Amino acid sequence: MSLDPRGDLVALFRAIVDIESVSGNEARLADRIEAALGHCGHLEVVRDGDTVIARTRVGRRERVVIAGHIDTVPVAGNLPSRVEDGLVYGRGTCDMKGGVAVMLAVAVAMTAPARDVTWIFYDHEEVESEANALTRLARTGPELLAGDFAVLMEPSNARVEGGCQGTLRFTVTTRGRAAHSARAWKGHNAIHDAADVLSRLRDHVGEKPEVDGLHFHEGLNAVAVSGGIAGNIIPDSCTIAVNYRFSPHRSVEQAKEYCRSVLDGYELSFVDAAAGARPGLDRPAAAEFVAAVGGQPSAKFGWTDVARFSQLGIPAVNFGPGNPEKAHADDEFCPIDDLYKCRDALLRWLA
Amino acid sequence: MSLDPRGDLVALFRAIVDIESVSGNEARLADRIEAALGHCGHLEVVRDGDTVIARTRVGRRERVVIAGHIDTVPVAGNLPSRVEDGLVYGRGTCDMKGGVAVMLAVAVAMTAPARDVTWIFYDHEEVESEANALTRLARTGPELLAGDFAVLMEPSNARVEGGCQGTLRFTVTTRGRAAHSARAWKGHNAIHDAADVLSRLRDHVGEKPEVDGLHFHEGLNAVAVSGGIAGNIIPDSCTIAVNYRFSPHRSVEQAKEYCRSVLDGYELSFVDAAAGARPGLDRPAAAEFVAAVGGQPSAKFGWTDVARFSQLGIPAVNFGPGNPEKAHADDEFCPIDDLYKCRDALLRWLA
Repeated sequence: MSLDPRGDLVALFRAIVDIESVSGNEARLADRIEAALGHCGHLEVVRDGDTVIARTRVGRRERVVIAGHIDTVPVAGNLPSRVEDGLVYGRGTCDMKGGVAVMLAVAVAMTAPARDVTWIFYDHEEVESEANALTRLARTGPELLAGDFAVLMEPSNARVEGGCQGTLRFTVTTRGRAAHSARAWKGHNAIHDAADVLSRLRDHVGEKPEVDGLHFHEGLNAVAVSGGIAGNIIPDSCTIAVNYRFSPHRSVEQAKEYCRSVLDGYELSFVDAAAGARPGLDRPAAAEFVAAVGGQPSAKFGWTDVARFSQLGIPAVNFGPGNPEKAHADDEFCPIDDLYKCRDALLRWLA
Repeated sequence: MSLDPRGDLVALFRAIVDIESVSGNEARLADRIEAALGHCGHLEVVRDGDTVIARTRVGRRERVVIAGHIDTVPVAGNLPSRVEDGLVYGRGTCDMKGGVAVMLAVAVAMTAPARDVTWIFYDHEEVESEANALTRLARTGPELLAGDFAVLMEPSNARVEGGCQGTLRFTVTTRGRAAHSARAWKGHNAIHDAADVLSRLRDHVGEKPEVDGLHFHEGLNAVAVSGGIAGNIIPDSCTIAVNYRFSPHRSVEQAKEYCRSVLDGYELSFVDAAAGARPGLDRPAAAEFVAAVGGQPSAKFGWTDVARFSQLGIPAVNFGPGNPEKAHADDEFCPIDDLYKCRDALLRWLA
């Protein structure tokens, strides 16, 4: 079934949600978005992998980028979507197909916006940074990302959220010595050694720094653990994967140093990292957007691609439907009201 | 290449080791053993799955069972076999292809033993109890296991080891609440909760009870741990698999009770269990074997199928080449001397 961006916004949203698009499986949804935008004479559409980019060519002095990722974390028995009390439930409803639906509706509706717009629907955001389509585009087609200001339609309760926290992933591996479990004292149990690492992570309290007037909230968490050879062998190795979400007052290097101090005595193998972004709401383009959509900005806890635009020198904010606290939760949802609020704010800003 | 039980014992041993037979993959080795025994007029050979049973029919008053498993734990880059300083290295050299080689050589050589012998080469010992071929045979062909006394050729430094410890496997699962790792405080980290379980296992000291004059040594160990949904999600579940090796003074029920007390407050899901066996060296048939092969008996730490024969009412001891402490170790080996000691002891006992 094709998507109808001119029809009912909630129906469009649910259709997008019901096209499962777990990272790596975005092709079908990208196809539908490309098809829906391809019908618009006012948009120049480029397909790059499973990313779809649509640009107006009105010739305005200013070009803004409005972007959203189309992938989701794995489904957890929460598809297809369902509606209850004005909320749409299902995988991706919060993070971030509400933003995608709003983008699609506004992209089709605004045939002659007051600012030229580059709409970016992209793949592989919910996985390691290197796989993110924006990484690829920054390398292979940076002109596609160019703009004076960017809005990321990540869930933010339909309010402006400034900056974002950085994210760092690393593993800690404890080493033991294998032996038959009937003579455990001849070996050394690497999984038992993981107790100390996990205790430190459990006892760690995330800091809450204030940056440029906004309050952030850090977190240091084991996100995976694995070890064991067989049911009758003392395990010789145990690996703990850790994710550190850090406030933008730290650089990636400072974040690594912080983790090394918490886990002093262990070797950390860093897997990937993405710097955060300071709120930067004092910059003119950001301030102008905030004024246009209204409300009081707050800090963005989750890492988003605002950091990526920041690094390209493009001021960027988060602004999208859905409560970010429900992102990735099995019962994630998006309030229907948020969809309309965001759509109307964009229409107002671009009019 | 066929096996030659009449040739050099070390060559036979290495040929058996070099036929990889990780649990579930015993068919090829069973085929070779069946073929080698099939040539002997004095043996009645039965193939049951990947178990090969060969019986003499001399008409002696007494029948003894001599048994060994032909499977191994997973290979760890330790095949093919190699010889160094009188030791043969490689997966299965210790546990327990030395015993298998001795059995095969003696089974073929002793055409008219002083006691009728049932030779059992069986599959699936290194996995859960239910898959063990002796479980199947006890159900489908108990007459094949019948005897007055049994010798398990498990590694025991070519000395008699009495009884065996029991083994119990269970899992403990901690439960949390998933959330995006950027807002960890909205979820609850199940992997962090595993720290307490692992700390208790790490701090637990295995008891060393004396039973029927022999000293046992217990062990309570995590053998596997797993948890985690994705690199950016607070994990909602973490499962620890535990193996308890317990002295034969405890029943399986008492062993479970003991584990419940160590991990008080957690729910234990029992996976499988096998009772131990008391040494029982006071029983006449056992005492007679000990006298014939010589040496001072000691306790068997590992669970072996002596427990299974004990439960069928057949006294049984462990007696085989190789140091049991090297069982399942990546650098497991068998001293060539042990092979000859065990072969000669059996020839003496059966002459």
